[in-house]
Amino acid sequence: MAKEVTNREENYSQWYNNLVVKADLAENSAVRGCMVIKPYGYAIWEKMQDKLDSMFKETGHQNAYFPLFIPKSFLSREAEHVEGFAKECAVVTHHRLMNDPNGSGVVVDPAAKLEEELIVRPTSETIIWNTYKGWIKSWRDLPLLINQWANVVRWEMRTRLFLRTAEFLWQEGHTAHATAQEAIEETQKMVEVYAKFARETLALPVVVGHKSEAERFAGAVDTLCIEAMMQDGKALQAGTSHFLGQNFAKAFDVQFANKEGKLEYVWATSWGVSTRLMGALIMAHSDDNGLILPPKLAPIQVVMVPIYKGDEQRDAILNRMDELKKELAALGVTVKIDDRDNLRPGFKFAEWELKGVPVRIAIGPRDLENGVVELARRDTLTKESVAQEGLAEYVKGLMDTIQENIYAKALKFRDENTRKVDSWEEFKEEIEKGGFLLCHWDGTKETEERIKEETKATIRCIPTDSFVIEEEGTCIYSGKPSKQRVIFARAY
Amino acid sequence: MAKEVTNREENYSQWYNNLVVKADLAENSAVRGCMVIKPYGYAIWEKMQDKLDSMFKETGHQNAYFPLFIPKSFLSREAEHVEGFAKECAVVTHHRLMNDPNGSGVVVDPAAKLEEELIVRPTSETIIWNTYKGWIKSWRDLPLLINQWANVVRWEMRTRLFLRTAEFLWQEGHTAHATAQEAIEETQKMVEVYAKFARETLALPVVVGHKSEAERFAGAVDTLCIEAMMQDGKALQAGTSHFLGQNFAKAFDVQFANKEGKLEYVWATSWGVSTRLMGALIMAHSDDNGLILPPKLAPIQVVMVPIYKGDEQRDAILNRMDELKKELAALGVTVKIDDRDNLRPGFKFAEWELKGVPVRIAIGPRDLENGVVELARRDTLTKESVAQEGLAEYVKGLMDTIQENIYAKALKFRDENTRKVDSWEEFKEEIEKGGFLLCHWDGTKETEERIKEETKATIRCIPTDSFVIEEEGTCIYSGKPSKQRVIFARAY
Repeated sequence: MAKEVTNREENYSQWYNNLVVKADLAENSAVRGCMVIKPYGYAIWEKMQDKLDSMFKETGHQNAYFPLFIPKSFLSREAEHVEGFAKECAVVTHHRLMNDPNGSGVVVDPAAKLEEELIVRPTSETIIWNTYKGWIKSWRDLPLLINQWANVVRWEMRTRLFLRTAEFLWQEGHTAHATAQEAIEETQKMVEVYAKFARETLALPVVVGHKSEAERFAGAVDTLCIEAMMQDGKALQAGTSHFLGQNFAKAFDVQFANKEGKLEYVWATSWGVSTRLMGALIMAHSDDNGLILPPKLAPIQVVMVPIYKGDEQRDAILNRMDELKKELAALGVTVKIDDRDNLRPGFKFAEWELKGVPVRIAIGPRDLENGVVELARRDTLTKESVAQEGLAEYVKGLMDTIQENIYAKALKFRDENTRKVDSWEEFKEEIEKGGFLLCHWDGTKETEERIKEETKATIRCIPTDSFVIEEEGTCIYSGKPSKQRVIFARAY
Repeated sequence: MAKEVTNREENYSQWYNNLVVKADLAENSAVRGCMVIKPYGYAIWEKMQDKLDSMFKETGHQNAYFPLFIPKSFLSREAEHVEGFAKECAVVTHHRLMNDPNGSGVVVDPAAKLEEELIVRPTSETIIWNTYKGWIKSWRDLPLLINQWANVVRWEMRTRLFLRTAEFLWQEGHTAHATAQEAIEETQKMVEVYAKFARETLALPVVVGHKSEAERFAGAVDTLCIEAMMQDGKALQAGTSHFLGQNFAKAFDVQFANKEGKLEYVWATSWGVSTRLMGALIMAHSDDNGLILPPKLAPIQVVMVPIYKGDEQRDAILNRMDELKKELAALGVTVKIDDRDNLRPGFKFAEWELKGVPVRIAIGPRDLENGVVELARRDTLTKESVAQEGLAEYVKGLMDTIQENIYAKALKFRDENTRKVDSWEEFKEEIEKGGFLLCHWDGTKETEERIKEETKATIRCIPTDSFVIEEEGTCIYSGKPSKQRVIFARAY
């Protein structure tokens, strides 16, 4: 089974596509660009949602729900926003079908044309700020800290499961504040929430930074992001947090009376992560045998495979497994016993490796006699014999060890593939090898654009954390002065 | 504040609309027929989701996600389904906007017309069964027990918040089975899950029964439902569970190899509840002062209002409240301290009554001295003085008492408004008074249709549980023989 996955070395892109499908995470649907998220993939997404949702609530946010549709005219209200978003989207023009007068099937009823077309939301700033106008009157109504879990649609021409799909699932936070300072702090707070989530739950090292003007969200004053490195050395933007200034408040006329009774426009942020994180998770950690899931996101943390001949051995081993499963469940470890009787153990081993289950426990008749199990770790592919006595405690501890090891491995890879580059010749050579290039840049759109045209590399971010290297230098492309290195990379 | 809600007696319909908006549950949006679910309303929906989701998982179901869009041709594949569903829906015809060549704003790009129109899902049987075709090969792939949480769109002409909206949120279960018997058992199991949820969580008494053929889901062989009674005596269908036979399997050619290796069509069920349950919750329990929430669904179970003059009293009372809040939180009770200093206690009392918080605790300076609190119950509007010592335990117990009392009250109301009716003259008189009428019916579509035309009453269900009255009789309308009474009512 695992053999059906293409090697990473051979064809990284095909390896990814194979893996998503073979590990039962998602598949393409009958609708161009829209995916079906299968139960195993959705269970991982649910774990991401649970954790993020509790982090949002701990930071004072509440969930709400806004309409799927946006009146076409709303998109034009914020000038930059429409430029960035309005173009490739699903447009609803009619509200009725009718029986085909010329035969079988149904056709669109021409009499049911909408007066104004509706756009399936590509993001919800416009409909939400139109709503906030009714909610915000006074400084006492602020801050307004709201999040929405929803589906959105962007009509992408070239789609890839999880990474770029016409419809995807996400959360979008939309907050309103009385001061610019407070909104800026919110923008920073939420990008830090994303960074913490990525590091501690996805086991994914990320760089936090600002986007350059060219890469900024349409309508934002500043965009913060988390950027991760995949195993092919390409960057993946895993989450963004935008300071929107007063742009949307002005576009939708949202003002509040301040403590002095004067009207002021409200300050805004928005921030989101999506099912794209599933793509990041897969590409950052997995290997040629299949997925490698961090224990915190694994729908099944331990799989048990009995090895037996005949019903008597089978019953004895499965009984012991049931007892061990109970002990593990009591410590909060999720266990599946694979008791399918039509498959050989080797086949099952490969299948659970493909699905990324962190720990596999096999018990054969001799193990049963000796009071031990064979325990295999997915992340290291190592095996050891462990006593059944105390197994639950041991495995519980192993969950943390594996979580940390997966992070450490990804961090090591990222650090090994991050380097300073100081000349244009070197840049053109190094960018072909992948990874993050820390380079001086003159801060202009023109230079950024040229570099992108010539090398397909973009500025992933101007780092604000561990990668901040404030030093004088000269732009690799133009030779003009620069005050800080930025991260260039090719990206998903 | 509470005064702004219309009396139920005066205008029940307006009372409902007022309540939904004034209690901050939902509001109409800029998009015709689509609502905004506000944070307080969404928090109640989240509690419903949590409980239902855990009940689905306990009964072996997994969540997944299928596309928002359905190719138009899919709707025609199951003949009855298209008749029942295809007509009023949102139709996507284009995938791009462009800058208006004649001026400002954006227009639909005529060059971006889709080859085949896409329908925003009104329900997902067709796209899901088209997907299942790829998932089901052998009896070993069955049963397939899947649920989806999603938004759906039905282009309703007359909409009401929560009860009937163009877009609504729901869950839809879609299961596949090897035998008719197993699928029928699943249909029954899930309607019982809904009934249990309604009774124990929503505190809503429901009748379980079969729909008549005329009221059946489009494409179903049999539809089971739960029916509740609102305070105006009208019925509300709160959930449905359909046995779909082999209709969708045949329409999408989904066959499996049975244990003998022969190909057979798969048997199907589908079942769903929606944000309509919010409407049922509101209309079943609330009064002229506002919402009455069962403790199991209340986002805030206890609100504390300090009564004080001056900062010294304020600090002392709020300190004590903090301690009590901690004790209550330790028992799992959700508490909010309303420390807003710009509002009088009377205003706060009215606001929290409007929002249906089950228990209100007020502490004044004398209460503080005496070690007591004033405790008010929302369901009975009674007040009592309770010692601070042991308050948490007392309130914890009160949550169950209130939950049960709300159910008992609704049950009493329903039973008082359910009666046997044996003649057509009596029926026409009684139906004007509202409530459930238990009547003999000859089992024909024609009679059902006539009764509906003449009285607007429909058969809510043919009961399968407590209301089963198997007795010989004659149809109230046609006088023909009948073997069982059914429930007639006017309905939402």
